[in-house]
Amino acid sequence: MKKISILGSTGSIGTQTLSVVRQHPDLFRVEAIAANCNDELLEAQINEFKPQLAVLYDEAAAKRLQKRYSGKTKIMAADAGLIIAATLPEIDTVVTSLMGFAGLRPTLAAIEAGKNIALANKETLVVAGELVMAKAQEKNVAILPVDSEHCAIFQCLQGNEREKIEKLLLTASGGPFRGQKTADLLNAGVADCLAHPTWSMGQKITIDSASLVNKGLEIIEAHWLYNMPYEKIQVVVHPQSILHSMVEYIDGTVMAQLGSTDMRLPIQYALTYPERINLQAKKLDFWNMPNLTFEKPDTQTFRGIDLAYNAGKIGGTMPCVLNAANEIAVDAFLHNKIKFLDIYNIIEEAMQSHQVDYAPTAETFFAVDEETRFFAKNLIK
Amino acid sequence: MKKISILGSTGSIGTQTLSVVRQHPDLFRVEAIAANCNDELLEAQINEFKPQLAVLYDEAAAKRLQKRYSGKTKIMAADAGLIIAATLPEIDTVVTSLMGFAGLRPTLAAIEAGKNIALANKETLVVAGELVMAKAQEKNVAILPVDSEHCAIFQCLQGNEREKIEKLLLTASGGPFRGQKTADLLNAGVADCLAHPTWSMGQKITIDSASLVNKGLEIIEAHWLYNMPYEKIQVVVHPQSILHSMVEYIDGTVMAQLGSTDMRLPIQYALTYPERINLQAKKLDFWNMPNLTFEKPDTQTFRGIDLAYNAGKIGGTMPCVLNAANEIAVDAFLHNKIKFLDIYNIIEEAMQSHQVDYAPTAETFFAVDEETRFFAKNLIK
Repeated sequence: MKKISILGSTGSIGTQTLSVVRQHPDLFRVEAIAANCNDELLEAQINEFKPQLAVLYDEAAAKRLQKRYSGKTKIMAADAGLIIAATLPEIDTVVTSLMGFAGLRPTLAAIEAGKNIALANKETLVVAGELVMAKAQEKNVAILPVDSEHCAIFQCLQGNEREKIEKLLLTASGGPFRGQKTADLLNAGVADCLAHPTWSMGQKITIDSASLVNKGLEIIEAHWLYNMPYEKIQVVVHPQSILHSMVEYIDGTVMAQLGSTDMRLPIQYALTYPERINLQAKKLDFWNMPNLTFEKPDTQTFRGIDLAYNAGKIGGTMPCVLNAANEIAVDAFLHNKIKFLDIYNIIEEAMQSHQVDYAPTAETFFAVDEETRFFAKNLIK
Repeated sequence: MKKISILGSTGSIGTQTLSVVRQHPDLFRVEAIAANCNDELLEAQINEFKPQLAVLYDEAAAKRLQKRYSGKTKIMAADAGLIIAATLPEIDTVVTSLMGFAGLRPTLAAIEAGKNIALANKETLVVAGELVMAKAQEKNVAILPVDSEHCAIFQCLQGNEREKIEKLLLTASGGPFRGQKTADLLNAGVADCLAHPTWSMGQKITIDSASLVNKGLEIIEAHWLYNMPYEKIQVVVHPQSILHSMVEYIDGTVMAQLGSTDMRLPIQYALTYPERINLQAKKLDFWNMPNLTFEKPDTQTFRGIDLAYNAGKIGGTMPCVLNAANEIAVDAFLHNKIKFLDIYNIIEEAMQSHQVDYAPTAETFFAVDEETRFFAKNLIK
């Protein structure tokens, strides 16, 4: 019986994690769940999974729930609650599916407490990959990727030696704007972005997928997860999202993982690794399969990829700036305060005006994140 | 330094094995080579690789070479020579790339002598899979597949538990006649068959690929190599031959191996497993990749697949009959004695008239092979 905590239980990854748990009540026990402010869904999850702890980051939402809930689950709020949900002694694995930079602090706390991490919060590694991986090694905990691409790579690495990797091939659907040029995207709106062709995801990652900033973040994530130089990480556009990423080895062999676009597969693999268990999900049917196509990404139009390569290669606090500026820009775009292409401009300006700290501590990141948000917000109003 | 013997050194797999050895003279030493009757090429291989033993199965060819050769390599002939080439004490691994049934006896001898087998002679497993695998287990030797499909599956199994396999997906190019119907194939000739779209191979396997009997033989090979029921082996036509086969697991994940159509890759992997080493060969370029397509095989037209499923499911000596009848039919077709579609009829008639022995010994197979050849030849003349 694996005891888990789910940070971000009411989001897309969180609810799908609970769907995996629901299929295997004999294998998983949910000890803690945490969400931002959706107290109604959290309450339903409490009633179904009966965790010992439930957290709402938003204090008003927590108070609402505390007022009406009379069961055995303890309700907590804010950062303090999140940290406890990440570190309860009983927990084996923490699923980190909080959105954005907010995932960093509880993830670090969970690693410090010796918990294995099923990592759905890529921003944690983007911002502080070196720190996080070093701490994970020190505490001997596994960082198991939940991102479908990184989970695919992880599966392609099984039974192989890391030093025999020639390169990682990170696939990208290309998003809803694939094939369009800068001139076509001048008036791209939120609704256009949310019409993602293959994956159903949360809002922020859907915008990131449209801008390909998401793929940029994944490049940095892959760099840290697999200790791979940026020169050996190649993005390949594969619009059907059936092949979820690949590893090329020095003998020319390419291992690939394929599957339906169902996030429960990587979630479950992260929870059961190194074993596999049954998953009631749509299976691929190669007798009735669309053509699988592959192409070079258009990095001129979709500048998210090269911005991330640059930030990653510079290192230090620069990826933190990339991430913070992007979070502010995406939020502004979602609220119709900026245009789609402004997302790139805001990231670029934030990076250009940043003085890199090449030896950051955890506290450095919190400071740089805050400064960058302030800077980016100033660009917007 | 791995010491190897190559049975069938002048054929397609044999010469490519030597090409692998040539790239890594520090890793491999060729102790023995054996061929059917090509004494000139064998002599050139002797001069380049300086094995301690070289064998020509054809006694006249062996005598020709013995007469003019004065170096240190010992020249032998016939079955006796082959058996010694398969069992020399110094040898670690025997590459079995003899053609057809002829591979069985030396492969059994090599296993008996405790040699690992790099198996390019699929007929050995088709005919006597149960016996061969049991003997390999008893002698604790590895049977490492060189067939590109089975090598792909083998790579897809690394780091996974065999009992978590949902099915094996064996890819097939579909051969030169893909898309044609029985009526189109009435006058298909040898030259049409030899125009294989993706792989460059020996004559016999090229005909087998055109008839899809080769895929049928591979189904039986996969059954024995991976102890997999026939219901869990599915053939998928993939005309580009870039994806070389797949394994689906119980969680719905599909692992695939991709690579250029270069047999040196599986040959080398069989020789270096579990390690990978560099191979100077064409690499895949996903930025310039043809569309990958997949479809259901046309088993009505290409009856080789279902004939093999039937023979395999019946078991006992029936796959031996399938194989022997096919070898005779292909040889007759190559000599323009029968039509292409007669290959299926000859196999079918031989199978229908056969009394299955469900507990065959090695000697049973030699007898059934001979009887079936006699029967099939009678159908032809």
